[in-house]
Amino acid sequence: MSQDHKILLSEKEIPRQWYNIQADMPNPCLPPLHPGTKAPVGPEDLSPLFPMELIKQEVTRERYIEIPDEVFNIYKIWRPTPLFRAHRLEAFLDTPAHIYYKYEGVSPAGSHKPNTAVPQAYYNKQEGVKKITTETGAGQWGSALAYACHVFGIDLEVYMVKVSYEQKPYRKTLMNTWGAEVFPSPSPRTQAGKQILSRQPNSPGSLGIAISEAVERAAGDPDTKYALGSVLNHVLLHQTVVGQEALLQMEKAGEFPDVVIAPFGGGSNFAGLSFPFLRHKLKEGRKVRCIAVEPASCPKLTRGEFRYDFGDTVGMTPLIPMYTLGHSFVPASIHAGGLRYHGAGAIVSQLLKDGLIDAVAIQQLECFQAGVTFARTEGILPAPEATHAIAEVFRQARQAREAGEARTILFNLCGHGYLDLAAYEDYFNGNLKDHELTDQEVKEHLSELAEYPLPV
Amino acid sequence: MSQDHKILLSEKEIPRQWYNIQADMPNPCLPPLHPGTKAPVGPEDLSPLFPMELIKQEVTRERYIEIPDEVFNIYKIWRPTPLFRAHRLEAFLDTPAHIYYKYEGVSPAGSHKPNTAVPQAYYNKQEGVKKITTETGAGQWGSALAYACHVFGIDLEVYMVKVSYEQKPYRKTLMNTWGAEVFPSPSPRTQAGKQILSRQPNSPGSLGIAISEAVERAAGDPDTKYALGSVLNHVLLHQTVVGQEALLQMEKAGEFPDVVIAPFGGGSNFAGLSFPFLRHKLKEGRKVRCIAVEPASCPKLTRGEFRYDFGDTVGMTPLIPMYTLGHSFVPASIHAGGLRYHGAGAIVSQLLKDGLIDAVAIQQLECFQAGVTFARTEGILPAPEATHAIAEVFRQARQAREAGEARTILFNLCGHGYLDLAAYEDYFNGNLKDHELTDQEVKEHLSELAEYPLPV
Repeated sequence: MSQDHKILLSEKEIPRQWYNIQADMPNPCLPPLHPGTKAPVGPEDLSPLFPMELIKQEVTRERYIEIPDEVFNIYKIWRPTPLFRAHRLEAFLDTPAHIYYKYEGVSPAGSHKPNTAVPQAYYNKQEGVKKITTETGAGQWGSALAYACHVFGIDLEVYMVKVSYEQKPYRKTLMNTWGAEVFPSPSPRTQAGKQILSRQPNSPGSLGIAISEAVERAAGDPDTKYALGSVLNHVLLHQTVVGQEALLQMEKAGEFPDVVIAPFGGGSNFAGLSFPFLRHKLKEGRKVRCIAVEPASCPKLTRGEFRYDFGDTVGMTPLIPMYTLGHSFVPASIHAGGLRYHGAGAIVSQLLKDGLIDAVAIQQLECFQAGVTFARTEGILPAPEATHAIAEVFRQARQAREAGEARTILFNLCGHGYLDLAAYEDYFNGNLKDHELTDQEVKEHLSELAEYPLPV
Repeated sequence: MSQDHKILLSEKEIPRQWYNIQADMPNPCLPPLHPGTKAPVGPEDLSPLFPMELIKQEVTRERYIEIPDEVFNIYKIWRPTPLFRAHRLEAFLDTPAHIYYKYEGVSPAGSHKPNTAVPQAYYNKQEGVKKITTETGAGQWGSALAYACHVFGIDLEVYMVKVSYEQKPYRKTLMNTWGAEVFPSPSPRTQAGKQILSRQPNSPGSLGIAISEAVERAAGDPDTKYALGSVLNHVLLHQTVVGQEALLQMEKAGEFPDVVIAPFGGGSNFAGLSFPFLRHKLKEGRKVRCIAVEPASCPKLTRGEFRYDFGDTVGMTPLIPMYTLGHSFVPASIHAGGLRYHGAGAIVSQLLKDGLIDAVAIQQLECFQAGVTFARTEGILPAPEATHAIAEVFRQARQAREAGEARTILFNLCGHGYLDLAAYEDYFNGNLKDHELTDQEVKEHLSELAEYPLPV
């Protein structure tokens, strides 16, 4: 057991491959379906939106995918990221638990998002794409892709969820710094945006709506493709550099975690840290509990249903087998903008259905309180998304104390909160509220899925 | 010569001592003078403001001062900081120069400031101090001290230069997160503030004014002391952890810098990086050029005079031998708030007078342009203060290209700019201007010093 605060790796220890959990799942993911024919989609259905290499990565069952040298060289800008032992937090919580966190906030965009933005931009460049469109919630994904597109010389058009665009104006400036164009969504630039605005002129927007806009723009232009920051299998794949590094770092610390915790929006944050650990559970039966933490105001994993549903709000994407609250569900305007998504990616949904991972939903006030305590003990101000993991860590650490167990806890500190200080200001001023969904609200949106096939 | 992007150290390699350049200066600093008697001040004159251990560190000529274990353990939260080789920037500038940067933005406050905030809070705690007052410009120092005071359980009252308080509201929230009280300066809470406000109700404030306010509050209460974020000898001393680490890291990279560059406000940023290198020049005659970069709108090193002057605006501090523009000089409201100070610390002033270091002044538009290029190549958005060093690096790299020389350049990337995006937004929107001082303006403020002794 290390007494050091930081466990660092050398650049030689950055993974050379991504880990694909599809090789090890006891039950494979169900295929996505074409929204019209309801038959499984093939590569040609996806090719207007994605470069062929990413479509291959979406479906392959190869266990390891080589990381191209060009991507590896950009990873070296911020990777390997540090792993910290939270000695001061442990003392504050008076817990026998050992708490470790992987810190992805050292990347250019300040979160884990560049791990997939860089390879996505790279493969698009390889296939001659001139422009990419995307959506962004809190702006983490948009700024990561802005950086990556700048590196490879690709234009970028970002649809930013309007409530975040207004709450976090500086994320827009950061995207502009890397040369991207940013529009608040819903916007009048697309049919999808116009349709939403005509029904609800003051719509705060949602990731689902912004996806509809970005997809529509890409589908209409042969030189333009679309990129998604979470949910899809290839996105989760790229994020496994996080967990592979953490596995090695935990080994250097002389420990294996009993519990691995990460925030949950569409799945890539959680998958990135947990899948390389989950592999040891799937292949060797090692005991490790992987917990996805979602906001109580957007509880697809804990209160949604496993259904075929659209990835976007308007219904332009293939139908994906996912835990969902229904694609028309617009989450409350909480500050963890990156977690305001109605559904969960196919892989994570299958793993949850098979009982291989756990999920918990936490209200935002508990999360912000945990975030402030974390900043006061460990010195890093966490992004609102990351505070969801921290709140669950606090619960686990208290359970460990009550049980008198030296539980080892690892979590993903997926980003810093220096661009989220308006949220903390609101919290300190008592302007934040918790949001409880009624069963009726949950039911209502799910009932719209009646016409689509059940995943079996 | 390393091909790696990062040169990292282990926690065992964090310095255990601070380096005191006063042991190696060919001409010692002149003593500070009492503003009334104009005789050299003694420890008892300073004891209402500072704990005795810091007063000792201010004047000692011991070469190395032990870092207390309690401080070392907090340093481990973010130290050692990384040193980067800027391969991508070198390629962009098409220069044969090797460019390295020490990155202090990984600290809790996002800058080098906690390096001295933590020991200052520690020594105050040791001597039973209950409350500290301080000034802050851009808010970097205030947030660093807020963090440090929280760690050691001391109350903190911050006077924040009004223009920065308004430009950078989120720094206030960060200080609040660590439990500090923050007031825009000039404020009606002090005689000094009232005096300024009565003459100039819309005063944008300055570091000099904020110092007057903080000093006044501390002087009036026996349980309260004052802390300064730069200028003083003990502050420069604490920052030498930066340069000592960088020296070791450059050694690991197999190089010794020809040029060491840092932004200049009061001197601690520049001293922290350069003094451990300068020691090799002073003791072994190694060739290294140390360049302090100040804003052209606040050019005390390049256009000021070496005079006895006050550290604050109202004239409450001892008279310090410094390059100064006069204590009544209020710099233009540029975004590099941390550099808006009328004078330079005594040590740096003596070194400049003795021709041992160099200084250059650069306009803010050139700095912001360099900062954007840096963000686009190296991925880190620099603080406006840090862009001053970067602009000079660009000049040096271009000179190296023109001369066909493989010059080795090291600079201090003293902080990130994630809390300064409003400044970048202004830059992109064309709202920033350069500020050229007339000779008349410089003369006017200096003429007020006629009544004070000349430093000889």
